[in-house]
Amino acid sequence: MAVSFTVTKKDSAGQARLGLLHTPHGTVETPVFMPVGTQATVKTMTPEEVRQVGGRIILSNTYHLYLRPGQELIREAGGLHRFMNWGGPILTDSGGFQVFSLGPLCKVTEEGVTFRSHIDGSEHFFSPEKAMEVQMALGSDIAMVFDECAPYPCSREYVLEALERTGRWARRCRAVHRREDQGVFGIVQGGTFADLREKSAGELVELDFSGYAIGGLSVGEPKELMYEMLDYTVPLLPADKPRYLMGVGSPDCLVEGVARGIDMFDCVLPTRLARNGTVLTRHGKLVVRNAEYVRDFAPFDRDCSCYACQNYSRAYVRHLIKTNEILGVRLTTIHNLHFILELMKELREAVSEGNILAYRDSFLKRYQGA
Amino acid sequence: MAVSFTVTKKDSAGQARLGLLHTPHGTVETPVFMPVGTQATVKTMTPEEVRQVGGRIILSNTYHLYLRPGQELIREAGGLHRFMNWGGPILTDSGGFQVFSLGPLCKVTEEGVTFRSHIDGSEHFFSPEKAMEVQMALGSDIAMVFDECAPYPCSREYVLEALERTGRWARRCRAVHRREDQGVFGIVQGGTFADLREKSAGELVELDFSGYAIGGLSVGEPKELMYEMLDYTVPLLPADKPRYLMGVGSPDCLVEGVARGIDMFDCVLPTRLARNGTVLTRHGKLVVRNAEYVRDFAPFDRDCSCYACQNYSRAYVRHLIKTNEILGVRLTTIHNLHFILELMKELREAVSEGNILAYRDSFLKRYQGA
Repeated sequence: MAVSFTVTKKDSAGQARLGLLHTPHGTVETPVFMPVGTQATVKTMTPEEVRQVGGRIILSNTYHLYLRPGQELIREAGGLHRFMNWGGPILTDSGGFQVFSLGPLCKVTEEGVTFRSHIDGSEHFFSPEKAMEVQMALGSDIAMVFDECAPYPCSREYVLEALERTGRWARRCRAVHRREDQGVFGIVQGGTFADLREKSAGELVELDFSGYAIGGLSVGEPKELMYEMLDYTVPLLPADKPRYLMGVGSPDCLVEGVARGIDMFDCVLPTRLARNGTVLTRHGKLVVRNAEYVRDFAPFDRDCSCYACQNYSRAYVRHLIKTNEILGVRLTTIHNLHFILELMKELREAVSEGNILAYRDSFLKRYQGA
Repeated sequence: MAVSFTVTKKDSAGQARLGLLHTPHGTVETPVFMPVGTQATVKTMTPEEVRQVGGRIILSNTYHLYLRPGQELIREAGGLHRFMNWGGPILTDSGGFQVFSLGPLCKVTEEGVTFRSHIDGSEHFFSPEKAMEVQMALGSDIAMVFDECAPYPCSREYVLEALERTGRWARRCRAVHRREDQGVFGIVQGGTFADLREKSAGELVELDFSGYAIGGLSVGEPKELMYEMLDYTVPLLPADKPRYLMGVGSPDCLVEGVARGIDMFDCVLPTRLARNGTVLTRHGKLVVRNAEYVRDFAPFDRDCSCYACQNYSRAYVRHLIKTNEILGVRLTTIHNLHFILELMKELREAVSEGNILAYRDSFLKRYQGA
């Protein structure tokens, strides 16, 4: 099997666990956060810098790469790893989330989705078969099935319809996938309806994927409801397969997710916040572009060991951001990814030491300033 | 003296020479090219990367730093070196060139120049005294006198008027300068009039500056005319002081300048071209954003040892540039600065080996495709 998973420790009190995710491009310790490299680059960073801040597996986007530069070009380049010079594992999403996010620009049938490019308005068609074809051309370590992520709030009827289609599409993905050096993950949908989560999980587990993602959360619902859904859904998934919570990356949600047994996360949040001039710290967010930091010669966070905090002041980074200098967003991006990846390391240590719940409480107290 | 200069070798055939420029932040081998860090950052790069590609002394802009973030803030930060985390020498221009480039937005009197900010239109006043005050606050290793660079073409009368004012202003700069850890360079003007160059040089040499810049060239005149002016002006300058040709950085002009006895250069060309998706090679320019490179999996230049050429293809960089990904301009910038700084190294070797003229001919033949 191209991708396999070993659970190395299970928390005695809850679902939290440590694991090793084995891929054709190396083994990764879990729980893990995957920095997002939408267009075959983690925005602003070199692969060496991603690794330097602790990145071990990244996510890239099938929809974006299909449009530009096109999967055939990447295949010719020797695959996505070689094209972008990243030697570690890569997970590609299926493009489903992006295509459905186009809203009125996309039209769904049983066969697939017709959509218009956000770049030039040209018409395209994605089906489960197409999504797999593109991901096979990219050569990622882990491909995701083509799914429909229902929005929130959403009627039970629509969620049911979408998850049934997602189940049929998952089967079609399975049927056409034929890269032995690539794992495939299923995606559990079902919105915020516990019984629909159960139905979706049941259908997918039958197909025996390399791992299981929980989709359709972190799409606008209250966080408490997301946690409730995790509590309900995680036990429905096979204990020997990795569990991936899609699109989640705020510090509090990562902590809560790990405590609830999630092994993998991805999110644009740390890199997007960085480009808006906001940095994450243990004491919450700091909007470094704000005027209050104009003469603040301290680093973002005195206790942080990242390159940005070791060498530059808030005042300097604020100057760079106000003058649109690229180094500014490079430094905030380095800091934010370093912060999230250090947090993941501490979470793994907490699980290892059997005190994830105490760690969670102490982290949240400080982070939320409670 | 804060800044001094040692000539270590003189070419037997021409004016070319090797030297050591000693500054409070270290000694630099000349001839040297100074990457431009307009707003306290060499665009897209960390200081470590600037050093990695061979940068040893950088230039920063008084006009820009005066407007944002302001020299007093930089003084509070501990000076420009500390603010931007660059431990090597820094030369600051005087702001004169930028202020006069504002055209109708600037008004000149004997006292100084009233101008409007290009950012918000606010009114400001720069005088020789103000230009020195700002540069003393920044704490650069080398400050430049406040001068007027006449455009090309320009009447003899105007050039004469401008250079006479520049001479009086140079005297005023000298009078108010009082940082012992900062050298001051004079700027020879005179446009393309040999006798005016002589007049300007004579006045400045009397003031005994740490070095002498040749201003007012590379402002639109034919290159041959620039070379002629260099041939005429260089012998007018003291042989034991560094000679700095301002605003010059195209490969052919660097080669010709070194052959004519120039010790220092600066130019935004390599970094600006990079941001436009153009890279410099020994065989001329390569516009990597062009469609012809879409499936070109070779590096910019097979013989180049820079980080970009060692790890990435033209096709990948083109993709990054077309999708506005920051890593694209980072890679073209790294390559272009590396190219220029390697060229300077080869020029120093050629002078050292006594064959600068042969090197020039062979370089130009290949570069210009002749």
